[in-house]
Amino acid sequence: MRAGGISVHAVDVAEGRPAAGLRVVIEALDPGGRRLVAAGRIGPDGHLDHPVVRGEGVAAGTYEVTFDIGDYVAARGGSGRFLDRVPFRFTIEAVQEHVHLPLKFTRFGYALFRGA
Amino acid sequence: MRAGGISVHAVDVAEGRPAAGLRVVIEALDPGGRRLVAAGRIGPDGHLDHPVVRGEGVAAGTYEVTFDIGDYVAARGGSGRFLDRVPFRFTIEAVQEHVHLPLKFTRFGYALFRGA
Amino acid sequence: MRAGGISVHAVDVAEGRPAAGLRVVIEALDPGGRRLVAAGRIGPDGHLDHPVVRGEGVAAGTYEVTFDIGDYVAARGGSGRFLDRVPFRFTIEAVQEHVHLPLKFTRFGYALFRGA
Amino acid sequence: MRAGGISVHAVDVAEGRPAAGLRVVIEALDPGGRRLVAAGRIGPDGHLDHPVVRGEGVAAGTYEVTFDIGDYVAARGGSGRFLDRVPFRFTIEAVQEHVHLPLKFTRFGYALFRGA
Repeated sequence: MRAGGISVHAVDVAEGRPAAGLRVVIEALDPGGRRLVAAGRIGPDGHLDHPVVRGEGVAAGTYEVTFDIGDYVAARGGSGRFLDRVPFRFTIEAVQEHVHLPLKFTRFGYALFRGA
Repeated sequence: MRAGGISVHAVDVAEGRPAAGLRVVIEALDPGGRRLVAAGRIGPDGHLDHPVVRGEGVAAGTYEVTFDIGDYVAARGGSGRFLDRVPFRFTIEAVQEHVHLPLKFTRFGYALFRGA
Repeated sequence: MRAGGISVHAVDVAEGRPAAGLRVVIEALDPGGRRLVAAGRIGPDGHLDHPVVRGEGVAAGTYEVTFDIGDYVAARGGSGRFLDRVPFRFTIEAVQEHVHLPLKFTRFGYALFRGA
Repeated sequence: MRAGGISVHAVDVAEGRPAAGLRVVIEALDPGGRRLVAAGRIGPDGHLDHPVVRGEGVAAGTYEVTFDIGDYVAARGGSGRFLDRVPFRFTIEAVQEHVHLPLKFTRFGYALFRGA
């Protein structure tokens, strides 16, 4: 069965703009260990442009997305490292489902509810 | 100058799905009174499909979007009217800017940060 | 029956601090028109200190809380008025229930889910 | 210097109530490995009642709080395990600062912005 894939969108809600440059890593938490599925940076439109969006490397199982918010904030002159590498962990039960992850964040927190 | 337009996306985050059927009204709060800009229902993909997305009827000024969350919840068998007609008010300062409004809601509250 | 009251807490999540000084107005939307229930400013601990917290002036019915986010942002040197006077409208169905409203906001949006 | 401590509050925003019974674990991510700081369940008022709130076991450093949302949902008859063990990782730079973590969640996502 065809994998639905994982898409990521990220907005810096302190500045009201797409989080261009934010580094994102997607790993599968397989029984034998972590497996890298995707790594890249958020583009100017807020999306991660990567074949994982169309299902490449995706099977049923548990995943962890890591957002490097600490580096993103530091690169823009922000201070503090309250958040650094932010994990979001979720499970794909049916491989054909698409999972959309819209992140809204500031230096101090974030909201991420599965999108559609 | 060409209007950037207003787009709306709505997700029922209690159920993890697009808020298909949710009624949305967009009004301009003009000095002389309210002016209807758009009215419709969220489609199966979570979007409001209406020419306002491409700028029809949009000028600089203040707007109010009303989401009929009370009716949406009642139509799905939910109880309670803590939220009924939910207003979101914002100002477009530069007419050419696009404003994207991604709503995430339950019966008890919502998050809406300007998207991108 | 004793009124449960309405409490408000507000955090500026761009800066990670209580929104001290933010002006808040609570009005009842009575059939005959708006009735002022409370007005004041958020204190250094993020709370609105007012007798409405203990139920003064509260009956069953619909309420609108207005948060003057535009003025708060401008007073701290922020630019833009995407949000100005932010309304949150809700209904108290059982007068003895306490309604807690924890607002998390930036210049570009907010999350408010009924607290507890 | 006296530790400020870590407090946790959790609300099930699909149901509009404190997440009584939700299991929470707080670990320090020390250079030598994970160190258990606190473990317990959210009480009827939404708080984790534990000495960590007053600073017991807290030093400067990085922490991970794990919320067992999957078990919480399953215990109430909910289906699906999109979220299971939800991590929130943050750094305390100045030991005397208090960190308040107000979690708002559904089965499909959550918002957590540092409180005050």
